[in-house]
Amino acid sequence: MEKTITVLPGDGIGPEVMKGALRVLKAVEARYGHQFNVTEMPIGGKAIDETGLPLPSETLEQCKKSDAVLLGAVGGPKWDGMEKRPEQGLLQIRKDLNVFANLRPVKAFASLGDISPLKPELIENVDLIFVRELTGGLYFAQPKRRTGNEEAVDTLYYHRNEIERVVKKAFEIAASRSGKLTSVDKANVLESSKLWREVVNEMAKSFPEVKVEHMLVDNAAMQLVRNPGQFDVIVTENMFGDILSDEASMITGSLGMLASASVSEEGPGLYEPVHGSAPDIAGKNAANPLGMVLSTAMMLRHSFHMNDEADAIEMAVQEVLNANYRTSDIESKKGRISTTDEMVDQLIYR
Amino acid sequence: MEKTITVLPGDGIGPEVMKGALRVLKAVEARYGHQFNVTEMPIGGKAIDETGLPLPSETLEQCKKSDAVLLGAVGGPKWDGMEKRPEQGLLQIRKDLNVFANLRPVKAFASLGDISPLKPELIENVDLIFVRELTGGLYFAQPKRRTGNEEAVDTLYYHRNEIERVVKKAFEIAASRSGKLTSVDKANVLESSKLWREVVNEMAKSFPEVKVEHMLVDNAAMQLVRNPGQFDVIVTENMFGDILSDEASMITGSLGMLASASVSEEGPGLYEPVHGSAPDIAGKNAANPLGMVLSTAMMLRHSFHMNDEADAIEMAVQEVLNANYRTSDIESKKGRISTTDEMVDQLIYR
Ligand SMILES: CC(C)[C@H](C(=O)O)[C@@H](O)C(=O)O
Ligand SMILES: CC(C)[C@H](C(=O)O)[C@@H](O)C(=O)O
Repeated sequence: MEKTITVLPGDGIGPEVMKGALRVLKAVEARYGHQFNVTEMPIGGKAIDETGLPLPSETLEQCKKSDAVLLGAVGGPKWDGMEKRPEQGLLQIRKDLNVFANLRPVKAFASLGDISPLKPELIENVDLIFVRELTGGLYFAQPKRRTGNEEAVDTLYYHRNEIERVVKKAFEIAASRSGKLTSVDKANVLESSKLWREVVNEMAKSFPEVKVEHMLVDNAAMQLVRNPGQFDVIVTENMFGDILSDEASMITGSLGMLASASVSEEGPGLYEPVHGSAPDIAGKNAANPLGMVLSTAMMLRHSFHMNDEADAIEMAVQEVLNANYRTSDIESKKGRISTTDEMVDQLIYR
Repeated sequence: MEKTITVLPGDGIGPEVMKGALRVLKAVEARYGHQFNVTEMPIGGKAIDETGLPLPSETLEQCKKSDAVLLGAVGGPKWDGMEKRPEQGLLQIRKDLNVFANLRPVKAFASLGDISPLKPELIENVDLIFVRELTGGLYFAQPKRRTGNEEAVDTLYYHRNEIERVVKKAFEIAASRSGKLTSVDKANVLESSKLWREVVNEMAKSFPEVKVEHMLVDNAAMQLVRNPGQFDVIVTENMFGDILSDEASMITGSLGMLASASVSEEGPGLYEPVHGSAPDIAGKNAANPLGMVLSTAMMLRHSFHMNDEADAIEMAVQEVLNANYRTSDIESKKGRISTTDEMVDQLIYR
């Protein structure tokens, strides 16, 4: 198959992990006889430096005409306090590609049990997925502004349609998995959460095979530590999803392991690791490339329906971990620390 | 000393744990020669049942003329879907007493190490305190409403003054402890967080002895699991504080252990456990009374400056745990399960 991919390495460790992902894609091309036409474009801080804008229109246009988009990470202290912020580029591309559902799987890797802060018996069988609303809620709604020196406001607004589409996606995913869906809200305080809960209850009628549970966000934050194995699919508002999915990364032991797929109703999906640009280790060949590589596997599976190829990558990741190759964020007592490039070498070799 | 206390048992396990707290207060009265004039008033679901309102004006008036207020918990399935909700009573009393700073200490109890989902070496030395903004932010600001069937909105608004007073409180607490303050926000996305961060940076100039760090809320949710020992004082917005403090309760092993104090610039403080009304175990004499009892100790210390009395209660809690008396939420392999009343018996006996 021939596919067009726009690649947005971004800032910090973004370019390093993206380089790894592209090497893995080359290996997939060779082994499975595909052709991936890759175009690299700037976003975030790099784009601000080059064009003055965190998301130049050329970048957006290129993304829109591709089959899928890979993104590394954006941001860094260099752009702190500037009027244009790298993160605006990330928020904007999510909005402009209309990728309203952000899928973040969290699965315990058996070989990483020792590095999780949670007790081993609690994480053994964890295999859950967040469906985070990504283009609305507290992140985007207006008014969102400063009034003089004294006041500031952000808005948590949802239209029923925005909730419906992401909740439907979550029900579909739950139906294809264990059939359990947890909807997280703060319906005892927020009006938007009451609407959210109503929509979930209505949608539930169309998915009689899915068991739905509502959980308050404070309780969910607690339950994810207390007993993460109770969850299968978790659907929630943008900001709640941001907080809870980062928290849940500790089940795997490192944010560096987590992949994500952001999907729209039609149009290209956006695939990015959950970790950020990690300026402190950028340029040192020390970043964990697995979150980016696993995001690439999600792209192959969800956008290109290349299930064997995605399986092969995920399997290689397991094997490399089992063989005790580790970057410093997932350090084990058994092996030495590998560089980003060495981790990718090991993946490709498998 | 003579003090007037308004007691709001509320719903669910509220009355049971409050009964325990009052028995402890009686013991303190007898041992230290104080007189506590206690008036019980309805709030939450109980108040809705009796008066139609979750916070009757008689309850509020009684609170305002007391030296301090003790609150159990509110809410339960009985009032679900009703127009008036028990939680409105809780939110309103916080607002009307103007208790803008909610202090939630989280300390690992050595004898509870085995019940925490976190690995023992991570929680050993945890001793942190949340300062949660409690009368503003996403919980209270207008507009907060439903528009027809289709749309809903909540508002995250702050005036600089609202941020200043709670941040000042947090700096004072940090100065009296290890001198480290972590301010949690989402300044890369929210305008209100940018204002928050500015206020923190300005206030820092008046507290040169306090080391300030800013942390994004998603990262904070992760760090509280990864390495909770790094924190001393954490100050944050109302909703962020709700989520993060419930999450952090897992350090102690149970929400049932956590106490809180909500304070204003002047006027009575409001003391309540962090746990909710736990309708599933209500009326069974099974609730953990320690969160409520420790909240009562906070009242003695902060509102009445009775430090010896507060110390005595906190010591008794330690001893009872060391002697392996446990309610089911903090069950250990070593002892049998005690009832709420038995736990209180043990406390009083010490
Ligand atoms: C960088 C930031 C704007 C972003 C977010 O909050 O969505 C990140 O934390 C994430 O989760 O992808
Ligand atoms: C009951 C609820 C409204 C309340 C809150 O969210 O503040 C509770 O969760 C708390 O933390 O005290």
